[in-house]
Amino acid sequence: MKIVNENILAFEKLYRTNLFNSLSGFKSANLIGTISKEGKTNLAIFSSVIHVGANPPLMGLLMRPVSVERHTYHNIKGTCFFTINQIHKDIFKQAHQTSARYDKDVSEFDACGLTPEFTEIVKAPYVKESKIKIGLKFLEEHEIKSNGTIFIVGEIIEVIFPDEVIAKTGYVDIEKAETIVISGLDSYHETKRIARLSYAKPGLEPKEI
Amino acid sequence: MKIVNENILAFEKLYRTNLFNSLSGFKSANLIGTISKEGKTNLAIFSSVIHVGANPPLMGLLMRPVSVERHTYHNIKGTCFFTINQIHKDIFKQAHQTSARYDKDVSEFDACGLTPEFTEIVKAPYVKESKIKIGLKFLEEHEIKSNGTIFIVGEIIEVIFPDEVIAKTGYVDIEKAETIVISGLDSYHETKRIARLSYAKPGLEPKEI
Repeated sequence: MKIVNENILAFEKLYRTNLFNSLSGFKSANLIGTISKEGKTNLAIFSSVIHVGANPPLMGLLMRPVSVERHTYHNIKGTCFFTINQIHKDIFKQAHQTSARYDKDVSEFDACGLTPEFTEIVKAPYVKESKIKIGLKFLEEHEIKSNGTIFIVGEIIEVIFPDEVIAKTGYVDIEKAETIVISGLDSYHETKRIARLSYAKPGLEPKEI
Repeated sequence: MKIVNENILAFEKLYRTNLFNSLSGFKSANLIGTISKEGKTNLAIFSSVIHVGANPPLMGLLMRPVSVERHTYHNIKGTCFFTINQIHKDIFKQAHQTSARYDKDVSEFDACGLTPEFTEIVKAPYVKESKIKIGLKFLEEHEIKSNGTIFIVGEIIEVIFPDEVIAKTGYVDIEKAETIVISGLDSYHETKRIARLSYAKPGLEPKEI
């Protein structure tokens, strides 16, 4: 099947949303925890978190226009802190439920059955039930002019995970932590490792390691 | 295990790279196809492609600083076109091999055993062996000041995929297309659907659909 530009513009809204949400491939599954200046916690599922760099350690995520998704954005701008909490198999339904449109004075932690947890250095709530949790400080934002979305970049200042998921090399086995993955708007998947491959060099076939 | 800021800075480079590359969760697996103004094709694996929007249809990807990853970037800026090709189970080794540092005059298509394919409206090579292929026109770039990486946004102008992977709702079943997913720097995984969940509403438990 081939779809070209003029046909794309003719699709009805939900069809178009379903279609384009699958084209980037599988998406990371994370909960973003924030708190307002008034102390109200907020939790929201995001499938747009990506690795930005290791030195300094940076992560990024894309947010919908501020007019739509205001709680997470305003909390990050208000406090400069947010947490990224990987979603695993046992909490994916609660995580999905955070996408419901709750009123501003309702915390998604309470409404969805997840537990806020704080540390000394990060002024934003972690998700106690998550296994791999990252605390970040807001650094940069970039508005995508074409649609008003905002790419947020934060610096990692704290990382919390179970001892058994990290190898001596620093590789974190997120499959062992049962981290799941998203496709489209609403599909959740577990993973099964095919292989790890050696560092690629010209003229050498990649080897399984 | 808890790692805080001062310890992060003490890690050696490879350990740090391994660690931070896993923290965003699983990553999409795509090949970016481009061509130089002189007609030389280029192919590179990226794990940073994300969905940016459905209306207009947009996708984004993060590139390493221009000084490092110059072929893909310069080709996109030179021609304004690029393709995104999902990586499936049967081509993941060839896809991984594109990350080797080939000379500018070597096409990764030839070196890695993949086939360039062109359409009338996209002036960049698709990967024939890929099942889900997207043609894009360059729209915006944003430099992440903290580390010099560049977030590129393109508009989707063509989509090519097998008829059997799309549902009437527009949902594209990328698991059926055997699209794979990446963790860390070098780990490749297949997926198994756990569930699709209904649109979340306050006060209602999400249902499997």
